[in-house]
Amino acid sequence: MIKNIGSQTSIFNQFLSEIRDHNIQTDSLRFRTNMERLATIMGYEISKTMEYVVKEVTTPLGVAEVPVLKEFPVLATILRAGLPMHRGLLSIFDQSENAFVSAYRKHNKDGSFDVQVEYVSCPKITDRLVILSDPMLATGSSLVLSYNALLTKGRPKHTHIVTLIASTEGLDYIRKYLPADEVTIWVGAVDDELTAQSYIVPGLGDAGDLAFGSKL
Amino acid sequence: MIKNIGSQTSIFNQFLSEIRDHNIQTDSLRFRTNMERLATIMGYEISKTMEYVVKEVTTPLGVAEVPVLKEFPVLATILRAGLPMHRGLLSIFDQSENAFVSAYRKHNKDGSFDVQVEYVSCPKITDRLVILSDPMLATGSSLVLSYNALLTKGRPKHTHIVTLIASTEGLDYIRKYLPADEVTIWVGAVDDELTAQSYIVPGLGDAGDLAFGSKL
Amino acid sequence: MIKNIGSQTSIFNQFLSEIRDHNIQTDSLRFRTNMERLATIMGYEISKTMEYVVKEVTTPLGVAEVPVLKEFPVLATILRAGLPMHRGLLSIFDQSENAFVSAYRKHNKDGSFDVQVEYVSCPKITDRLVILSDPMLATGSSLVLSYNALLTKGRPKHTHIVTLIASTEGLDYIRKYLPADEVTIWVGAVDDELTAQSYIVPGLGDAGDLAFGSKL
Amino acid sequence: MIKNIGSQTSIFNQFLSEIRDHNIQTDSLRFRTNMERLATIMGYEISKTMEYVVKEVTTPLGVAEVPVLKEFPVLATILRAGLPMHRGLLSIFDQSENAFVSAYRKHNKDGSFDVQVEYVSCPKITDRLVILSDPMLATGSSLVLSYNALLTKGRPKHTHIVTLIASTEGLDYIRKYLPADEVTIWVGAVDDELTAQSYIVPGLGDAGDLAFGSKL
Repeated sequence: MIKNIGSQTSIFNQFLSEIRDHNIQTDSLRFRTNMERLATIMGYEISKTMEYVVKEVTTPLGVAEVPVLKEFPVLATILRAGLPMHRGLLSIFDQSENAFVSAYRKHNKDGSFDVQVEYVSCPKITDRLVILSDPMLATGSSLVLSYNALLTKGRPKHTHIVTLIASTEGLDYIRKYLPADEVTIWVGAVDDELTAQSYIVPGLGDAGDLAFGSKL
Repeated sequence: MIKNIGSQTSIFNQFLSEIRDHNIQTDSLRFRTNMERLATIMGYEISKTMEYVVKEVTTPLGVAEVPVLKEFPVLATILRAGLPMHRGLLSIFDQSENAFVSAYRKHNKDGSFDVQVEYVSCPKITDRLVILSDPMLATGSSLVLSYNALLTKGRPKHTHIVTLIASTEGLDYIRKYLPADEVTIWVGAVDDELTAQSYIVPGLGDAGDLAFGSKL
Repeated sequence: MIKNIGSQTSIFNQFLSEIRDHNIQTDSLRFRTNMERLATIMGYEISKTMEYVVKEVTTPLGVAEVPVLKEFPVLATILRAGLPMHRGLLSIFDQSENAFVSAYRKHNKDGSFDVQVEYVSCPKITDRLVILSDPMLATGSSLVLSYNALLTKGRPKHTHIVTLIASTEGLDYIRKYLPADEVTIWVGAVDDELTAQSYIVPGLGDAGDLAFGSKL
Repeated sequence: MIKNIGSQTSIFNQFLSEIRDHNIQTDSLRFRTNMERLATIMGYEISKTMEYVVKEVTTPLGVAEVPVLKEFPVLATILRAGLPMHRGLLSIFDQSENAFVSAYRKHNKDGSFDVQVEYVSCPKITDRLVILSDPMLATGSSLVLSYNALLTKGRPKHTHIVTLIASTEGLDYIRKYLPADEVTIWVGAVDDELTAQSYIVPGLGDAGDLAFGSKL
């Protein structure tokens, strides 16, 4: 199931316009802030689908009944580009446990690439709710590999995949390789094209570089 | 029109439970943070009702069409208790102009009180959208006076009143004294009772004191 | 006593250069963030002069002796321009009680002006340490009036006045009208000139307008 | 060269007392916030040792000469425990490029352990200034390995190592294995003991677990 947050007009699209804008991208602080704000909104929309239990809370003047989260989700993110989104999600799910996964594109001489998974730090995830964030869903292969890397640590009850911009091709890939009933995909926008170098068009460029600088 | 954000379960209610909880209230940093988070969510929900225009944004790889805010709202708040909510609203409407209003309860010897308006700093608001934040809507008299204080500076196109906890009585008062077609009221929760000292029950106590300390 | 934080090179001056820069000023979010960062640094430098008591802290593995603040200062600020600085100070003195003072320049027909104090919200300050923040110290008259407005509520043990940019003339005025042994003045930079309209040159313009928008 | 920020009383030690305190540690949001605040202060103190160039800045009213950073340092951190400190450093060096290194303790059957380096994402660092953050300096072996992992990408002009709590033994190890003239070590506190499991005593426990939850 795919849910497109950007299809309903809201301030969400304002932030999305800013991270796409190559002039505004020169301010990396604002770029990171916008990724955080976008992820915070997406986390809030996801929270509407979660389970709550009514808790009796003692105020200075009485007792109130308020629904609180039954269980905090595990916040998983893909290094390094996912870190600002993770930060946004953690700002609202502040009691969550967290997982970090690193995956990279290993380029071959012929221009093709493999995705290499290097690092997984992960709490118990079996039977838990997981939110996995990655800003760009280009081919989808890195996300599928990261998801499978997490599965080596346990089997979540359900996983919400959160991505800011997805390509049509990437979404097709995800639908093909991830179990439809165990995964919900939340996107901010869907772009049609993918370059030969697997960049989304119009997209925004390389989210990791824009947030943290180029790497060797 | 009254919109109750807390009536749909979401992480919003988690934060609301924390600001109500007299144990968690001892951490004033968390109290302020929760007021910010609550106001941010309310601002986001309000943003869904605003007008957008499609903008062509040049990315490093192409051109994207993204809806952006037609005009940023004016963010008005009531001193001092409204400052953390204002901060949350400003974190998403970061290009907004801002208004600050101070109003206080002047207690009379017989236990009754008048609301005194002291300070108004305000941009042009005529024909603009205004979001007016005040954490607690108890009797409603202070909010009506603050609203009227703003009106001395111009006539907004529409005003969204944002309050975390409202009393039934306060909402009735607002409906009676504010023009229904020019005002939308957003609340996080509605509590039934009001003490003789005009505190909401169960409420959360004095939001200003909890955020900023007692005052002489 | 005057302490000039900007006279020692540090990242402080980077932020100061940004709030002065009329190109960077167009980003009001960054302007407010920079005021916060500057105030945070100034608060940290002031904290070096405060009193501490050694506390035994139980860690998961033993007991550590750590010096903690003997008492949190009261954070007072002048509305509305001081709010971002107050925010920065509160981010490090997070258990502080807070005071808000509003003062404005009432312009006369002949171009001169009086300072009008409207609003004071203040905790007990007698025998306590107070940090009073105001971004621009132009003529100094508004600061002296705000200080005197606070004094109507009690007599602090000592007051640290924190200002980002001061004029030479304003500092002279402060030295003349505030008690030297009860006040320490912390500045980020000292500029030489003052226009006929009492703006500091080169200064940065109107800090309140840059942070919150123009006002009627 | 070792610089102990905690040896001068300041609000720094307040935050240090909070991250050590096993009662306050139950609030992971505050734990992360404190790590950020501590790293921000350390970054500011480090910034006093950096090089600046005077820049002419055009204000709305004139031209000011302000010293600005000659070059932003590269901010390197060790996953995952270093992420909150990295966040604090990035909040003041907001134009910096960033490096992430992952290293972990691979425990052997006999209770000893090796440090395994898995992941390095790194910009050009040759002839640049690097700040490498890691909250706990226990044996020092993981830090030395991470430093050497960075060296595979280039040779920095100088590296500032930033750690919140160091053991005496760890500092000795660092001094032995890192080049004294190319490295400055900034610590918040020095603790005497190290358990057989290489935890610092009294220390604070496992910084990564406290910030992000336990891991499998």
